[in-house]
Amino acid sequence: MEINIAFDEALQLLLEKCSITSKEKVNLRDSLGRVLAEDIMAEEDIPKFKRSPLDGYAFRAQDTINANDRNPVTLEVIEEVPAGYVSKYKVTPGKAIKVMTGTAIPEGADAVVRYEKAKEEGHLVKIFSSFKSGQNIVPVGDDVVKSQIIAYKGQVLNAPLLGLFAALGITEVWVYRKPKIAVISTGNELQDISEIPEPGKIRNSNKYTLEAYIKELGGIPVILGTAKDRAEDVALLVAEGLERADMVITTGGVSVGDYDIVKDAVKSIGADIVFWRIDMKPGSPTLFSVKDGKVILGLSGNPASAMVVFQLLGASFIKKLGGRTDYLLTKIIVTLKDNYNKVSPKMRFIRGRLLIDNGLAWMVLTGNQSNNVLSSLIQCNLLAKIPAGSGVIKAGEKLEAYLLN
Amino acid sequence: MEINIAFDEALQLLLEKCSITSKEKVNLRDSLGRVLAEDIMAEEDIPKFKRSPLDGYAFRAQDTINANDRNPVTLEVIEEVPAGYVSKYKVTPGKAIKVMTGTAIPEGADAVVRYEKAKEEGHLVKIFSSFKSGQNIVPVGDDVVKSQIIAYKGQVLNAPLLGLFAALGITEVWVYRKPKIAVISTGNELQDISEIPEPGKIRNSNKYTLEAYIKELGGIPVILGTAKDRAEDVALLVAEGLERADMVITTGGVSVGDYDIVKDAVKSIGADIVFWRIDMKPGSPTLFSVKDGKVILGLSGNPASAMVVFQLLGASFIKKLGGRTDYLLTKIIVTLKDNYNKVSPKMRFIRGRLLIDNGLAWMVLTGNQSNNVLSSLIQCNLLAKIPAGSGVIKAGEKLEAYLLN
Repeated sequence: MEINIAFDEALQLLLEKCSITSKEKVNLRDSLGRVLAEDIMAEEDIPKFKRSPLDGYAFRAQDTINANDRNPVTLEVIEEVPAGYVSKYKVTPGKAIKVMTGTAIPEGADAVVRYEKAKEEGHLVKIFSSFKSGQNIVPVGDDVVKSQIIAYKGQVLNAPLLGLFAALGITEVWVYRKPKIAVISTGNELQDISEIPEPGKIRNSNKYTLEAYIKELGGIPVILGTAKDRAEDVALLVAEGLERADMVITTGGVSVGDYDIVKDAVKSIGADIVFWRIDMKPGSPTLFSVKDGKVILGLSGNPASAMVVFQLLGASFIKKLGGRTDYLLTKIIVTLKDNYNKVSPKMRFIRGRLLIDNGLAWMVLTGNQSNNVLSSLIQCNLLAKIPAGSGVIKAGEKLEAYLLN
Repeated sequence: MEINIAFDEALQLLLEKCSITSKEKVNLRDSLGRVLAEDIMAEEDIPKFKRSPLDGYAFRAQDTINANDRNPVTLEVIEEVPAGYVSKYKVTPGKAIKVMTGTAIPEGADAVVRYEKAKEEGHLVKIFSSFKSGQNIVPVGDDVVKSQIIAYKGQVLNAPLLGLFAALGITEVWVYRKPKIAVISTGNELQDISEIPEPGKIRNSNKYTLEAYIKELGGIPVILGTAKDRAEDVALLVAEGLERADMVITTGGVSVGDYDIVKDAVKSIGADIVFWRIDMKPGSPTLFSVKDGKVILGLSGNPASAMVVFQLLGASFIKKLGGRTDYLLTKIIVTLKDNYNKVSPKMRFIRGRLLIDNGLAWMVLTGNQSNNVLSSLIQCNLLAKIPAGSGVIKAGEKLEAYLLN
């Protein structure tokens, strides 16, 4: 067991212990937001045939070589082909075929003039400029080329990908099973949210915050209820969590006092403790243990401590568990918009929001930075790192920050 | 009917016609991602009582006035109070009470020393520095103050908000009904994605892309199938859509040729056409009409044209329909990372991705910018505006851009 380790080391140790969930096949329409478990190679070109990008007339570019405003070229319109049909005739010198947006380019034609730029007169059409071969023709494979890999294993499926899969006739895809995350609350002080708390007690809010974060990450929360502050109670729930889920998260009971019993609980069921305490604020009291390849992440009971560690460590773990390859948070440099008037003997993460103003990336602090304060996470999408030993940080100073989600 | 209007005017006209859906009450645990239909005022402080942020000893700060490393002060530990309980005794001069993270501060105490920084000896504890009144005590209302509005009508509910609601004992909230969006495809060229397309035909991909985008926006897609290129067929489906949904979106059939029949279809059912064509690329062929207060948005059949207009106009409309107050896209200034080697006689939106590099906001182009190309939307989260009449845009030039979602 390592104690009080550096944040980067904690993240690395956690991710090392992560194994990916199994695969399942889902219908294309049920695949939004899921994580692809296979590379998808295009089995055909998109588009598969040369098509017209507009309503107009298809002809041979060579026929318009000398055409201009005063000397239009006149072609005979031999056919009209709506989108979805193919021409019966070939385009030969002096001939044109009327086409619509999406119509396959008739054989022999190599240019299209826009409907509004030509002049139809009976079965004739006048063209007032010269065209290059290929002009206004969408080439085969303009969007996707046959044999191209259009989506990779580990990629999250979004709307344009679903559209491309549809265009390729892909009706089912292999995705990773959604990771199941068990959530256990510990603490004699916790009451149900429908109750009016007795003196000294509080409502259990961490359970709801974590449940929502897990859903946002595409996981399935398995809420296992609240253990009293006894190692045996916690151990029972952790064992249940290990059976029913891919990972267990606990809140509370990981500090240094006599009632910090998650450590004893996981020891009692034979889990290996990998580390205890991270050298950071908030969230120092974090416990990480492993049993039979499954991870138990013990978070602080303080809302912000718990959620900051969840975002910085837990979320990356859950993403990786669910097969995502983009599981690491994006690191950026931001300029602080406000003063942060506290010294930081320890490395500290502060909560804020990305603001792009005049082309620069700023961070606006989102409120009270105390360990127990959840409200400053509502608007937070950025956690900036203040190095250990820093004094007050002034507005205008640059910080390294992690972009959340 | 206005023709070929400016983009900003199109957006304004569309949003003017938007009415918000009705309200419904949902359980807190079902409210993630929903849009709040009421302001939420805190009916109590969080925390409700002064609490200890750490495991340690509570005492009177005044007792430590002269304490230092060589001259520690010794206090008598008269009680030990775990979190969730309240002290039986008061702290008086010379006394201390052992507390845990989350314990209510005992009466008489106004400071807490961290467990690791004190030295317990039998029923005594030694403190080695002087404390200020309030030190290591979480004040009442540190997170939320009673009567404070913690969430506003029109705000999307996220994980920290759900946690705060739980902490306040809020078990149900009023949210806006999810907007239902009917999707109609038009075009003789469209075939089902499970079929191998006949010559000149393509699979209907727009339906799947739109269905997914609508879900991502928190709407309920109502997929009404494909109409052939006949105004009567389209009219029937639009009428069905107006009955079953809050808004209708069509793709295809809005260009200038003889087969562009959505305009005729909506006229035939008595809808008012507000505008037709927007002075922009891609997506110029856009039709906007209204019938009995419900909006029909006619998009191009070209995938990228349709989806760019959907993102720039449709998405804002759907967000507003669903009650969101943050329905407008965020405008930012970005520096182009790549050359864009095409001149732009018309105002044009180009697809790219935000990259924050060394504190600056860059835009990386995401590929082929043609009207028919969907693949450059996969990674796209930024649409930058190139003003009408622009020449080639060089890497390093600044553009105004809309940040998607």
